[in-house]
Amino acid sequence: MSSTENNREEPAVAGRYNLIEQISVKTGIARDETSFGTATVEEGSGLLVSQNLMLEGIDFNLMYFPLKHLGYKLVVRTIAGIYASGGTPSALSVNVALSSRFGPEQTEELFGGITLAAKKYNTKIRYFDLTSSLTGMTLACTAWGSREGDVPAARKPAATDLICVTGDLGAAYIGLQILERERRIFESGADVQPDLSDFQYVISRQLKPELRTEVLAELAKAGIAPSVSTVIREGLASELLGVCKNTSMGCRLFYEKIPVDSDTYRNAEEIGIDPVVAALNGGEEYEFLFIAPVAMAGSINKVNGLTMIGYLTDASEGCLLVTPGDEVVELRAQGWSW
Amino acid sequence: MSSTENNREEPAVAGRYNLIEQISVKTGIARDETSFGTATVEEGSGLLVSQNLMLEGIDFNLMYFPLKHLGYKLVVRTIAGIYASGGTPSALSVNVALSSRFGPEQTEELFGGITLAAKKYNTKIRYFDLTSSLTGMTLACTAWGSREGDVPAARKPAATDLICVTGDLGAAYIGLQILERERRIFESGADVQPDLSDFQYVISRQLKPELRTEVLAELAKAGIAPSVSTVIREGLASELLGVCKNTSMGCRLFYEKIPVDSDTYRNAEEIGIDPVVAALNGGEEYEFLFIAPVAMAGSINKVNGLTMIGYLTDASEGCLLVTPGDEVVELRAQGWSW
Repeated sequence: MSSTENNREEPAVAGRYNLIEQISVKTGIARDETSFGTATVEEGSGLLVSQNLMLEGIDFNLMYFPLKHLGYKLVVRTIAGIYASGGTPSALSVNVALSSRFGPEQTEELFGGITLAAKKYNTKIRYFDLTSSLTGMTLACTAWGSREGDVPAARKPAATDLICVTGDLGAAYIGLQILERERRIFESGADVQPDLSDFQYVISRQLKPELRTEVLAELAKAGIAPSVSTVIREGLASELLGVCKNTSMGCRLFYEKIPVDSDTYRNAEEIGIDPVVAALNGGEEYEFLFIAPVAMAGSINKVNGLTMIGYLTDASEGCLLVTPGDEVVELRAQGWSW
Repeated sequence: MSSTENNREEPAVAGRYNLIEQISVKTGIARDETSFGTATVEEGSGLLVSQNLMLEGIDFNLMYFPLKHLGYKLVVRTIAGIYASGGTPSALSVNVALSSRFGPEQTEELFGGITLAAKKYNTKIRYFDLTSSLTGMTLACTAWGSREGDVPAARKPAATDLICVTGDLGAAYIGLQILERERRIFESGADVQPDLSDFQYVISRQLKPELRTEVLAELAKAGIAPSVSTVIREGLASELLGVCKNTSMGCRLFYEKIPVDSDTYRNAEEIGIDPVVAALNGGEEYEFLFIAPVAMAGSINKVNGLTMIGYLTDASEGCLLVTPGDEVVELRAQGWSW
């Protein structure tokens, strides 16, 4: 799910996926299987294209999202798919639609963040346009880049292949819960000055996500060619179920292996949320999910910031989650009510 | 201006351009001069990328815009820039955000039009996604393609260069006025059955624009290399002033040379609008505007569907419009109040 969706009455993610499948079938538009959480790849040319649309009230709430951070996140979110597909982004194109409540200063703030992220990730802004909106702010961004020709050809995923993730999970979701809590307190009119110093890490993961390009570089250097590589945008469980569906595989995911930062863990417990459940289902993480042959376990182990959290199985075994008590349950996306 | 903007209180186009320039300067983002109404060109690789964002209430009104036509127009509007830049689109990526008032049938209608246009223009839909919107429909589309390596290198525009347009102008704007008139009649509750048979051409130009790719093919075959090539999206006057600004040239445009279809002419007079003023200022035409050396006048004359409407001058002479009475006035975009 995308960030603020959690707080509204929304059709379930499953409903959205069903509609996407329905459109694919009825119109004959193949939704490129490799595109889920990744970039569209033009075979042969090495060209990668990634498109991203963000709507106010759906993907961000300007009550607590500073415009500079929003611009930064827009770029990170767009280029993430290109990195996940083994490429490097080189250029960006940005369309911003603004209602009359946004003036030049706010527009500059937003573009300040866009410029900062473009610089950080060595990407050139080749085009931008400003248009009108009746209500709120709408951001559309397209990134393109290329993949080196000498990337080893990915083989088909197979049973026993390892499931790996970069960094740590759940932080962006916990950060969102903190921000939403403060919003509710503010809206209730309570005269409380928020002290968010204890929540810095989780809030920064929500407001200013970064991509672990250094882990990707280490992977490439170690000659590890993932058979599947994607970015976690809608929650680990959702992405992994998507991978299993697209590759006709099952999986076994170990609850206790899912990496959660100690700050995330503490903050989650403080607000009464199971940190690993947040890690399983929280969206907007921008960590990468890889599938790689078990033979590479030794090399993977040496890569900093990469954690093995499970393995693929035959589809007949289903998609399973192994709990701390060694109980085996079905893996579900968004398995509890937000 | 975009289609339905005309009917609302909007900051003048000039205000928008000023803000765009301000953002360019303050953030150091160069808004690629060649991108205005064209695609972003990656020099060397021949890659062309074009991005397009359409918002309900700004760029279309679903009261009279059938969803299938809207999907078609989304694609045409996106790929137009690639054709204008001398390229051929090969692939598309589409993001659609829908509020809960849109069901699966409407989504299918929309994608039916997208598919139809993609097929018509030989472009493959490589990716699509559906997300939520709080209010209305938002469409984002990115197209990419390539330009053949053997396109003759464009030279800098010079005084005496000819200004040429494809097809005819003003129709989409008159079509919009008719549709808006019918909307007002409908909303007033009047019990009148609309008879739009007399307005077929202008309405089709608004609802289902096509690109004159056959004229582009003839141009290429005749070896005519325009020094500037763009698509008319915000009105002839606005585009031409943009070209003059970007190339530091002036122009002399002949009012009586501007091509207007006889149906457009008649319909415009019926509703009390000067047809050539509509042709000068009406947006969403999707005709192409070219600048080409005067030495090519003979070849240009032989190309079907291409009209010479004026020529470039030194900047010091200004941007001028020659009226039917041979009066010379300053060329302005959106020179009268809508």
